[in-house]
Amino acid sequence: MTVKKNRQFRLVSRPVGMPSNENFTLQEVDLPELQDGQVLVRALYISVDPYMRGRMSDAKSYIEPFPLDEVLVGGGVGEIVESKNERWQAGDVVVGQLGWQDYTVSNGRGLLKLDPSLAPVTTALGVTGMPGWTAYFGLLDIGQPKEGETVVVSGAAGAVGTIVGQIAKLKGCRVVGIAGDDAKCQYLLNELGFDATINYKTTDDLRAALKRACPDGVDVYFDNVGGEITDAVMSRINFQARIAICGQISQYNLEEPELGPRVFTQLLKNSALAKGFIVSDYAPRHKEAMLQLGQWVAEGKIKYAENIVDGLENSVEAFLGLFRGENIGKQLVKVSDL
Amino acid sequence: MTVKKNRQFRLVSRPVGMPSNENFTLQEVDLPELQDGQVLVRALYISVDPYMRGRMSDAKSYIEPFPLDEVLVGGGVGEIVESKNERWQAGDVVVGQLGWQDYTVSNGRGLLKLDPSLAPVTTALGVTGMPGWTAYFGLLDIGQPKEGETVVVSGAAGAVGTIVGQIAKLKGCRVVGIAGDDAKCQYLLNELGFDATINYKTTDDLRAALKRACPDGVDVYFDNVGGEITDAVMSRINFQARIAICGQISQYNLEEPELGPRVFTQLLKNSALAKGFIVSDYAPRHKEAMLQLGQWVAEGKIKYAENIVDGLENSVEAFLGLFRGENIGKQLVKVSDL
Repeated sequence: MTVKKNRQFRLVSRPVGMPSNENFTLQEVDLPELQDGQVLVRALYISVDPYMRGRMSDAKSYIEPFPLDEVLVGGGVGEIVESKNERWQAGDVVVGQLGWQDYTVSNGRGLLKLDPSLAPVTTALGVTGMPGWTAYFGLLDIGQPKEGETVVVSGAAGAVGTIVGQIAKLKGCRVVGIAGDDAKCQYLLNELGFDATINYKTTDDLRAALKRACPDGVDVYFDNVGGEITDAVMSRINFQARIAICGQISQYNLEEPELGPRVFTQLLKNSALAKGFIVSDYAPRHKEAMLQLGQWVAEGKIKYAENIVDGLENSVEAFLGLFRGENIGKQLVKVSDL
Repeated sequence: MTVKKNRQFRLVSRPVGMPSNENFTLQEVDLPELQDGQVLVRALYISVDPYMRGRMSDAKSYIEPFPLDEVLVGGGVGEIVESKNERWQAGDVVVGQLGWQDYTVSNGRGLLKLDPSLAPVTTALGVTGMPGWTAYFGLLDIGQPKEGETVVVSGAAGAVGTIVGQIAKLKGCRVVGIAGDDAKCQYLLNELGFDATINYKTTDDLRAALKRACPDGVDVYFDNVGGEITDAVMSRINFQARIAICGQISQYNLEEPELGPRVFTQLLKNSALAKGFIVSDYAPRHKEAMLQLGQWVAEGKIKYAENIVDGLENSVEAFLGLFRGENIGKQLVKVSDL
């Protein structure tokens, strides 16, 4: 029997500040022989996500840091090519936690079978997967948008932000997106139906721009970025505003924590709520989100964008691109053909 | 008919930074003759509260600023000495919004009749009144403390903090109070049953002190003060912690907003919730709080402290003392005898 080769990205050092290629290594190893109960999954697509930056640090957190010198793990879609587990068959297409590698050996736990005839398999990593659930629960459960209210989303052109804005439109809200270039803003306005957008990189007065875009103030803020963009939005929140803290990408690569205006004063003055969350907080309701999002996509009520880089060897570049704001919609890496 | 004289404190200029005597004037005016529908209330006690600092500024807020050159208005207990309103009779003792003055002319709206035989009338301004309701809703509705959890309260020896800690004890929590002198800390420990206290003025390492006082981290934080004390508490919050933002007294008198560590990162990492509130958010449930607190006081389950300054002319001093942390429990000014 021939031994299969497996390329895999490992984390070799913990990034200080912005991660770089030196923190990672791509190496080729022999695949071990499959044990009873295991399946071998060939990667089709892997997902690179901003939250993974957190796992590259070893600061105290509720989530385990990636161990050094081991393969990086994240969401992925793959095909089972060999099975010694009676629940799975070769040919099954699955979504789950896979490595940044050509092949993942899995005991099958946490894998979910996909039907490629129903929807492109990539959607399981985006609009109907983790980013979609994140948008769904953060906006609806924390943000509780009501018809006629104003919803602002930062990181609006990303995998989560694009879904947040569209769900808010379905709920009858005025939707304002903040993003980092004009092409993104045009996409949000023209393709996704946002009511207004702000390019924070070219706006010389973000507060004034927000005032124009949100003449009635901000009722719901879905925050993906933090930092000075969030400072500006917080200066415009309404009484009893709700802020869903989904990400703080502006802060992830800082070598020293940044100081900013004290936000508790704003929350107090406005009887406002701010809540951080991760999608696993809503694990018992993931299926609800998946079904609802799938229905909205099938009905054409929600569109999605994907930015797909080709080749496992480009995974680190695709990940680093998230922090340069290069993607519209979900950033994926295509590893092999179905 | 003799014209009654009325002494009243007016706001003559808006404080910049810490308020001082120059912002106020005590002047004597003639009382107007009572119109139909009006009552004349003789002040017995007036309440001075930190939130009134906010109304002395004219920054945009959901609450009206005090107009300049008019009498300051706040909670008070008084006796109706003349009535041209059929709902009220001379001799009725009431609690409501009164002026910082000997006599208030009222149309009766918002006044609540008290029975002085049931409880000292001062409690209607403290434990069973607005500060008690504030503690009740902030802790129970936002904080949602569960048995065995750790609750930290800042401004712990104040009118609200003393009640927060005792309710948290009734709910089976470990209760840690932060206050500004040893006498207050001893009172909280020995009289009110707090589990631990921290004197932030004499502690050289607040974070280390919190770590000792909260070995299992902080599940609920009831924040009256903000600033660096809150920074330290936020560094110790647990996953899914709840923070009730009731006051930010450290910030009220700053001439420039202060910078601090960005707290959204802490909320995100911990899936934690922070919510500002004012007691009027819970107006439909005030009666529930009043009845429950009254019952707890009657059963000896909640104690209360009052700090009473004698004489209307000392109202401004009593108010300023709040920012110097002089009071244990509710700060009141006695204006006249029942």
